[in-house]
Amino acid sequence: MTDPTSPHSTPTAAPSDRSTIKRSAHHASYDRAAIDAILDAALVAHVGIVDGGQPFVLPCAFARCGDELLLHGSVASRLFRNAAATRNICVTVTLLDGMIVARSTFESSMRYRSVVVVGDARLITDHEEKRAALEALSEHLIPGRSVETRPMLDVEIRQTSVVALSLAEAAAKIGDGFSDDPDDDVALPIWAGVVPLEQHWGEPMAAPNLVDGVDVPASVEALRLR
Amino acid sequence: MTDPTSPHSTPTAAPSDRSTIKRSAHHASYDRAAIDAILDAALVAHVGIVDGGQPFVLPCAFARCGDELLLHGSVASRLFRNAAATRNICVTVTLLDGMIVARSTFESSMRYRSVVVVGDARLITDHEEKRAALEALSEHLIPGRSVETRPMLDVEIRQTSVVALSLAEAAAKIGDGFSDDPDDDVALPIWAGVVPLEQHWGEPMAAPNLVDGVDVPASVEALRLR
Repeated sequence: MTDPTSPHSTPTAAPSDRSTIKRSAHHASYDRAAIDAILDAALVAHVGIVDGGQPFVLPCAFARCGDELLLHGSVASRLFRNAAATRNICVTVTLLDGMIVARSTFESSMRYRSVVVVGDARLITDHEEKRAALEALSEHLIPGRSVETRPMLDVEIRQTSVVALSLAEAAAKIGDGFSDDPDDDVALPIWAGVVPLEQHWGEPMAAPNLVDGVDVPASVEALRLR
Repeated sequence: MTDPTSPHSTPTAAPSDRSTIKRSAHHASYDRAAIDAILDAALVAHVGIVDGGQPFVLPCAFARCGDELLLHGSVASRLFRNAAATRNICVTVTLLDGMIVARSTFESSMRYRSVVVVGDARLITDHEEKRAALEALSEHLIPGRSVETRPMLDVEIRQTSVVALSLAEAAAKIGDGFSDDPDDDVALPIWAGVVPLEQHWGEPMAAPNLVDGVDVPASVEALRLR
């Protein structure tokens, strides 16, 4: 997959050495519009921390809010205690778009879009900033939902940790197109192509204890139209 | 989400302290059948390494082969150079199954299945073991494909690094069911339920340079029926 005509094949400058993509650098982009588009399309991030020399990677709901990523979890979680203490984290977001099927297993790969962000986590301690961040998280996951739910309680805000990570050191990597088979392989009568991987929201299922007469809300209907 | 009748709500014993799930431990499972089912349904893992104190998380195709995870990449990649040198890695696999919509944002969450594996990576150096591992990787991604492609070349095997990670220290975590709203919230006329997230393979697209008369192969057809 080395298409020199691809728009992301001309990398912009990396903001730091630790955020520079070394492998398949022609797939790299440091362009904020490209980075934001990937982040805004994803629901889950994988957050990497180091605890006593041991790396841990944990899945986490997230949202982009302006120039920062927001992550939330229990105040008691290892992830958030660690992020607050050591601060140095890595957040990776990956969207899988399909399988690139080549004439050889060597050239076979995947269509994907990923973003890697490194930096120092900032624990949000201000109560109102935390409330706004939690609303942004809810709005990222289900736009329009936060005005349908009952209002957040102060005790809920206190029980939640929210961490912000600057997008200053972010890099995107995109695998697209078709396989880059050598000419000898292209001449073979072996199929090559792409099998797209598609994702969509299914039919909403009401909770068994839902009170009578409550319809599927606008936010959930809108989610299914995305 | 604290359903005491759920089959994974009775955790088996964790194999080590670093693989013990601390948060929402009632969602944890150390059962190999549960772990294997998640791993075998996923295509991408997020691999965490530490490089000079900095955590890095990178997406990576993987396969489970018996009691090990297999990961492959370029011999030149930071991930594989690091895994071979420091050995200590974390591999996390997450399947997102839907959104759990509660009456409050606080109780809203996701349906997911995840596995976290920690341990020392083992670089596979034996040429024939590497060939078998690369075939297992190909078969995990597209079952049946490895007999349709042209045979792997020795030079391709030499250019690829394959790392194995034992499943001895693995833990699964599953979020399912509906939201666990307190009684006061359940009484509110606010919708709660689940919106499933579904994934399927789309229509195969032939490569633009495919020679005439080559049909979509059996492996790709079978993928779409899964």
